[in-house]
Amino acid sequence: MTDAVRRHDPAARGFASDNNAGVHPEVLAALALANGGHQIAYGGDDYTANLRDVFGLHFGERASVYPVFNGTGANIVALQPLLPRWGAVIAADSAHINVDECGAPEKLAGIKIYSVATPDGKLTPELIDRHAYGWGDEHRAQPSAVSITQSTELGTVYTADEIHAICEHAHERGMLVHVDGSRLANAAASLGVPLRDITTDVGVDVLSFGGTKNGLLFGECVVVLNPEAVRDIVYLRKMSAQLASKMRFVSVQFEALLGGDLWLRSASHANAMAKRLEAAVRDIDGVRLVRPVQANAVFAMLPPPVTERLRKRHRFYLWDEHTGEVRWMCAFDTTEDDIDSFADAIADEMSRA
Amino acid sequence: MTDAVRRHDPAARGFASDNNAGVHPEVLAALALANGGHQIAYGGDDYTANLRDVFGLHFGERASVYPVFNGTGANIVALQPLLPRWGAVIAADSAHINVDECGAPEKLAGIKIYSVATPDGKLTPELIDRHAYGWGDEHRAQPSAVSITQSTELGTVYTADEIHAICEHAHERGMLVHVDGSRLANAAASLGVPLRDITTDVGVDVLSFGGTKNGLLFGECVVVLNPEAVRDIVYLRKMSAQLASKMRFVSVQFEALLGGDLWLRSASHANAMAKRLEAAVRDIDGVRLVRPVQANAVFAMLPPPVTERLRKRHRFYLWDEHTGEVRWMCAFDTTEDDIDSFADAIADEMSRA
Amino acid sequence: MTDAVRRHDPAARGFASDNNAGVHPEVLAALALANGGHQIAYGGDDYTANLRDVFGLHFGERASVYPVFNGTGANIVALQPLLPRWGAVIAADSAHINVDECGAPEKLAGIKIYSVATPDGKLTPELIDRHAYGWGDEHRAQPSAVSITQSTELGTVYTADEIHAICEHAHERGMLVHVDGSRLANAAASLGVPLRDITTDVGVDVLSFGGTKNGLLFGECVVVLNPEAVRDIVYLRKMSAQLASKMRFVSVQFEALLGGDLWLRSASHANAMAKRLEAAVRDIDGVRLVRPVQANAVFAMLPPPVTERLRKRHRFYLWDEHTGEVRWMCAFDTTEDDIDSFADAIADEMSRA
Amino acid sequence: MTDAVRRHDPAARGFASDNNAGVHPEVLAALALANGGHQIAYGGDDYTANLRDVFGLHFGERASVYPVFNGTGANIVALQPLLPRWGAVIAADSAHINVDECGAPEKLAGIKIYSVATPDGKLTPELIDRHAYGWGDEHRAQPSAVSITQSTELGTVYTADEIHAICEHAHERGMLVHVDGSRLANAAASLGVPLRDITTDVGVDVLSFGGTKNGLLFGECVVVLNPEAVRDIVYLRKMSAQLASKMRFVSVQFEALLGGDLWLRSASHANAMAKRLEAAVRDIDGVRLVRPVQANAVFAMLPPPVTERLRKRHRFYLWDEHTGEVRWMCAFDTTEDDIDSFADAIADEMSRA
Repeated sequence: MTDAVRRHDPAARGFASDNNAGVHPEVLAALALANGGHQIAYGGDDYTANLRDVFGLHFGERASVYPVFNGTGANIVALQPLLPRWGAVIAADSAHINVDECGAPEKLAGIKIYSVATPDGKLTPELIDRHAYGWGDEHRAQPSAVSITQSTELGTVYTADEIHAICEHAHERGMLVHVDGSRLANAAASLGVPLRDITTDVGVDVLSFGGTKNGLLFGECVVVLNPEAVRDIVYLRKMSAQLASKMRFVSVQFEALLGGDLWLRSASHANAMAKRLEAAVRDIDGVRLVRPVQANAVFAMLPPPVTERLRKRHRFYLWDEHTGEVRWMCAFDTTEDDIDSFADAIADEMSRA
Repeated sequence: MTDAVRRHDPAARGFASDNNAGVHPEVLAALALANGGHQIAYGGDDYTANLRDVFGLHFGERASVYPVFNGTGANIVALQPLLPRWGAVIAADSAHINVDECGAPEKLAGIKIYSVATPDGKLTPELIDRHAYGWGDEHRAQPSAVSITQSTELGTVYTADEIHAICEHAHERGMLVHVDGSRLANAAASLGVPLRDITTDVGVDVLSFGGTKNGLLFGECVVVLNPEAVRDIVYLRKMSAQLASKMRFVSVQFEALLGGDLWLRSASHANAMAKRLEAAVRDIDGVRLVRPVQANAVFAMLPPPVTERLRKRHRFYLWDEHTGEVRWMCAFDTTEDDIDSFADAIADEMSRA
Repeated sequence: MTDAVRRHDPAARGFASDNNAGVHPEVLAALALANGGHQIAYGGDDYTANLRDVFGLHFGERASVYPVFNGTGANIVALQPLLPRWGAVIAADSAHINVDECGAPEKLAGIKIYSVATPDGKLTPELIDRHAYGWGDEHRAQPSAVSITQSTELGTVYTADEIHAICEHAHERGMLVHVDGSRLANAAASLGVPLRDITTDVGVDVLSFGGTKNGLLFGECVVVLNPEAVRDIVYLRKMSAQLASKMRFVSVQFEALLGGDLWLRSASHANAMAKRLEAAVRDIDGVRLVRPVQANAVFAMLPPPVTERLRKRHRFYLWDEHTGEVRWMCAFDTTEDDIDSFADAIADEMSRA
Repeated sequence: MTDAVRRHDPAARGFASDNNAGVHPEVLAALALANGGHQIAYGGDDYTANLRDVFGLHFGERASVYPVFNGTGANIVALQPLLPRWGAVIAADSAHINVDECGAPEKLAGIKIYSVATPDGKLTPELIDRHAYGWGDEHRAQPSAVSITQSTELGTVYTADEIHAICEHAHERGMLVHVDGSRLANAAASLGVPLRDITTDVGVDVLSFGGTKNGLLFGECVVVLNPEAVRDIVYLRKMSAQLASKMRFVSVQFEALLGGDLWLRSASHANAMAKRLEAAVRDIDGVRLVRPVQANAVFAMLPPPVTERLRKRHRFYLWDEHTGEVRWMCAFDTTEDDIDSFADAIADEMSRA
């Protein structure tokens, strides 16, 4: 019983973002489980105490975990311990930290970003070297960290070897490595590997681990994989307005996600739906798939009038106004029917082009 | 069904903080109601669209509302539009923004705080004047805003007249007024007035309205009451890492809280429990109540050995190590039995002092 | 009489930087002139009062002027009033603010820089458009200003028409325009136009006007050309640690520089020396001039072993370690003999290549 | 020869500030000495190379020295290495960093200041303890440093023992100690001790050493006394816009000041003039000296109408509008005649009160 009323159609789904999806029922059930009685606020609760074990299963026993509110918050908290006040982070120019956080890294934490154009959203040692120089020169914000997104903002996935090469390259130059893993689960599911294979075991120092895009109500975690190099997260989290008072309700969601295989089921499903969509539209005349479909996103070029008409029927983003590229994103709750009827709509609108 | 397991005793409650309580069942029910299907992320959902009406009921039709994650976030977002880059805010030295946010105002937003000692956590025009000068002098961070907490960190409550006097005083000097209302509901319940009587109608410009301490899972709102003076919250919210992607789940909680009278029932109950505790301990020998009990907190002096033994039986804070003052906080779920058995324990431990 | 002793050879000069030169004798004389007696500190002196007239001669009567310590300080102070807290500035990737200030814009003022690669250090409307979009989208740091350097870090000069086109383009999109004019005098001298022709009269909103590289002991000025749009410099200057207490000694230097034609004599001479160097080395076999010589810098490609040997004889910068490009910078005190003997040394070392 | 013209009366002096004085002739001579030829910019010059020896004479051989532009700049640069991002500094509420820098510590460097009221501008271990607690509590900006001003903003002087006690107290609690020594020379002269007796030898970690108020044209130095604890000043200086390109002209001024005894002659003279003024007005009826005269400032209470008339004849500050307290500051160039005629004017105006 509540004074709130249902205001939306729970059967309506689109392809705009995995953030548009709601909460996985198992996660909602976990919230209720953690409710009732008093638990020490700000992380002193039993669910947060258990979280290290939960993450240890996936990231190794040296991993420590710090729940925060959202992805921008996770990134801000995770990056600051990697950088001195005069430090800079090297990132792809398409990185969320560079283009999608309203300047939060610069504005909240004074972080200089050296951004570099990439063909596919992925950094490489060679691309990193465009900015990796000038240590000891006080005129230059010191390159101190590398940040990569996995899976990337362009729907591509780094292999374990690629991340390993980046970490080695960075570490040899005295830089640390951050992974923005708001869709790390999708990447691991795509590669068919445990989460640690693309993080802990290849040298990543700190991780923003995403939950919201994979079916949580809210919540991300800063996961420290290299405790010698990455310290003092507790202060940075509080100071960055990312410390949840009723933290048990963040932590229990991650237990629901990672305690069993929910993370993998949901991510694999979203990925599979993207693959299904790719297959369904690949042969539609005039639709051009412009990026490899490796996670839960499909990028395509459509004639602008088709995009315009199609967006009246289904929700999705026009990714690049200049080129006409569109993004179709699948979520844990996207159904096969959703894909098929969307593909039909695309074919239908294309046939009128 | 979830892989998470219950790890705590839902019957255990204490007096440490209203943040230690869980979620009100009506709020949890609202979360489920808003689930299912896709809704536009970042505030484009139907629940957030409705929120302006919900808040309008309480704060007037000019009020606009911006959900954020937590109290520190609300304060950071609400204060920035009040201040130029070279501005300062005048606050009580006991204010949460001054002592309990790890310097977030200074560190995230460059906000200078002019703090002033108060007898009871409450500012007055006279106390404000200790710092309200020097406009036009470039050497001085310009006093641009006043921030008060309602109810205060010391459990006291400003009357509508007191806030009105502060707002007039501030406005006459070109300063704006912010209310940190993480417990505004408790204050209104204590005074027996509508929320607007102590905010909109007495000249407050912007409000951090608290939900978490009054039974939400998480969530606070920045409420703009003076839209001419307080602008651009959307950018500040995003830039401050306070923009929830699945905002429908913040908004629907506030609908549950404010759409009917849940806010008032919960706050009144917590206040009543504090009054009951006050009454129960007032005459215990050696217990000294040191502050007026006007909201949901009771502050008392106990002999340190009694405090030490009592804290082994019930959870609460030693508020001031130097003086021995303790704080007992009641929540929406505190029961009469909780109070009575706690009072018994106090009497018991005092008798051994 | 002083306890200090001369420690350097006043006859030794090089081509490393116009910052390596000392103070023009007329400027030193001006310092003595302003000495003696008391003058109100922090800009209340008679020399600073006169400065508006001095700058008015060159920038028009609406120009107001604010002396600061150095170029980074001038840029920080000048950019802040152009941007809301969530704003970004578009600049060439070679811009001093982007690569040579240790991240001061980001770290002191939270300024997001959208940088763009250029062929010659110069922005164009087309290049600006790579980043000039997304207004109203809270996820994107809002493009609020364009910053160009005149003459550029690559020794090139914008024409008045080019700046005019940039200003129009920016203004049409709601952005303001900043000129980093640490070598503005060299640009005006090169173009043979008054200073206002490439600033005030083509729509520039605010200017960092350089003195140090043109023969001052120290000192730059923030010059506000559009007083409607650019306000509150006095607070920003103080808050940014750029307010000189004995400001008379900054102001009188600018009077010496701009009250007559010293600025033009010095800049023209430095430019002429660069042209002489260009002419002298153009035909040396193996020397390749890689950028147009439009101000006081010459950029060339030399074989690395030649560069290495040559730097043992004359001081200059290896500009790009990857390509082998070198920079030779002329100053107000560079002599024809300096050029000729340097050119001889280049020819000599090349002949051994 | 210069196009600048003399615009002021070099015989006019007042009591407003030691910043209102000009440059000591020996300092001006030093500037000329360092002129001519090219020297490596940004501190690579021969005068800066020598500076470590110059400061070593006064502060010991472990001291390293970093010239900056002004006092605010020195403080910002000196404080940052003492504090983690979540750190706070404890200071007197009258401290320059707290009230006279337009919030630069908060705004440029995110420094939280815990300020405490003092009777005389001086901290003590007891006063420090008002804020020295809460280490390990993430909700509290961590007290990480103590900053004292020597001589204080109220004209008082810490003894060596007092500073020693503060340093011991701070160090025992894991805090470092900064001295804002914009008038350190006046303090040492007053105490009749070498500079190291009140800095290096009593445990100070880092010092802002002032030159401007003691006869330099401009320039302060960050002096690191504890190189194990205070690092990376070069980056912080550049990033804080405090790196002078033609640094030789800052460094040679400090050589003139500290290479011989100019610092002591000038400071002793200014102090003596304050003492002369104190003696001259002590017995004037109605003048009340309200603070001990220990350096170069005299604070007094005058009837407001007398102050008003007197300020038309001589320049000085009304220090506190509420109490009517005034400040009279002596400089290196204040003469005995200046004092005597000012005292006469005071007596004259008082006689009309």
